[in-house]
Amino acid sequence: MICFDAISVIPQVFESYVSSSILGRARNRGIFEFYSYDLRIWTHDRHRTVDDAPFGGGQGMLMKPEPIFEAVEDVSAMDPRKPHVIFFSPCGTPFTQDLAQKLSHKERIVFVCGRYEGMDERVYTLADEIISLGDYVLTGGELAALTVTDAVVRLLPGALGDSMSAQDESFSQGLLEYEQYTRPANYRGMEVPQVLLSGDHGAIARWRRANALERTLRMRPDLLEGADLTAQERALVESLTRSSKSDDQLTEES
Amino acid sequence: MICFDAISVIPQVFESYVSSSILGRARNRGIFEFYSYDLRIWTHDRHRTVDDAPFGGGQGMLMKPEPIFEAVEDVSAMDPRKPHVIFFSPCGTPFTQDLAQKLSHKERIVFVCGRYEGMDERVYTLADEIISLGDYVLTGGELAALTVTDAVVRLLPGALGDSMSAQDESFSQGLLEYEQYTRPANYRGMEVPQVLLSGDHGAIARWRRANALERTLRMRPDLLEGADLTAQERALVESLTRSSKSDDQLTEES
Repeated sequence: MICFDAISVIPQVFESYVSSSILGRARNRGIFEFYSYDLRIWTHDRHRTVDDAPFGGGQGMLMKPEPIFEAVEDVSAMDPRKPHVIFFSPCGTPFTQDLAQKLSHKERIVFVCGRYEGMDERVYTLADEIISLGDYVLTGGELAALTVTDAVVRLLPGALGDSMSAQDESFSQGLLEYEQYTRPANYRGMEVPQVLLSGDHGAIARWRRANALERTLRMRPDLLEGADLTAQERALVESLTRSSKSDDQLTEES
Repeated sequence: MICFDAISVIPQVFESYVSSSILGRARNRGIFEFYSYDLRIWTHDRHRTVDDAPFGGGQGMLMKPEPIFEAVEDVSAMDPRKPHVIFFSPCGTPFTQDLAQKLSHKERIVFVCGRYEGMDERVYTLADEIISLGDYVLTGGELAALTVTDAVVRLLPGALGDSMSAQDESFSQGLLEYEQYTRPANYRGMEVPQVLLSGDHGAIARWRRANALERTLRMRPDLLEGADLTAQERALVESLTRSSKSDDQLTEES
């Protein structure tokens, strides 16, 4: 059981996602808890102000430090389990499957979701971890909190149900996943690779591994460095890389 | 005006986000439209089946090709504007602010959101673009569709309102954003940098630029290569890089 708490000025956006599909079933089975809190609870003026103008000028508004400090302290104190407090920022650690794996061992995660043009820099002193979802800018941290929740929950034992597995998939061995096909074997003239219909499990396993290697080499060669390859596979990759480099040279020269 | 259509087996998860906060106000002002469709509309059996077992064996279920082909064709035909059809996969192009910028010039975007262990490979022939949100695995494409929608909408003219800007921020010049502060000037002993209180706009602009450079160099040095720097700034970065390298050597030698 892991508990997620999300602090946000739009706490109503979380429930429809965490109560649907795989996450909804996992929550109903008691695999995780998810609570959201309106940051405006921790304001003390009648307008429930959470933002203010930046010192030094500039466009837009920043999130004030006081409500965020008080919210994190109060939410942390609601439960005896020590929280792991996560903020989101383009300056943070890139979110990866390895990080999702690590977070899946926490007992409790508190997300602080920013809005507006940013947050007063001092709030980051509350963070146990600052995560970046990628090199793009969003209007707030809510989708990031849901993304981390989703990636973490599906790794928890039982979350995907008995028939599914979080192991046999992209990144689990450092490679992209092989191509997959289901019925019909011929759809609008597009045929499933014959080997997958052969019933020869050894041949299927070899085809899948080679397909995963080839796809990774073509689409995400940067992943291969950290991948778990046999000596034979590494030699294959090196020879394919050399031949594709000499192809490039031929193309440039022609 | 840009129109987003999302095809999903959990179409109920989009509305609470796109109707809230900045996106909700932008939609009310007619800056974008967002519609979601239940993929099960395009099934033809009484169980409304969208998935099937993979050829060649393996755990989990795949999304069948037929409902997805029919859904994309029907949704595309609903509107005379040519749709840009986006699928999500770890094999896709990484999503970046540049890609958000490009997508903000489309008239119409159709998202196809996968679920389960994956999709029959043939469905990707429908894609104008395959996007990867990052090197992590989610239970489906719905959060990715919302993330792309959010990043794109906030770039549309008028979406952030008059007082805010999508320009003065992370990545807009290839650097992380400078630290920002708001009142109080001293919060629990943490003080705002004096220069920001000085009223000297030249000094503030110089501090912000140097702070953005220093943060980028420390936290995301990979961004500096593509950043828009003056010759003087590039020289400064090189000298800081050299001095940090010689610090490392000293540490290793000691």
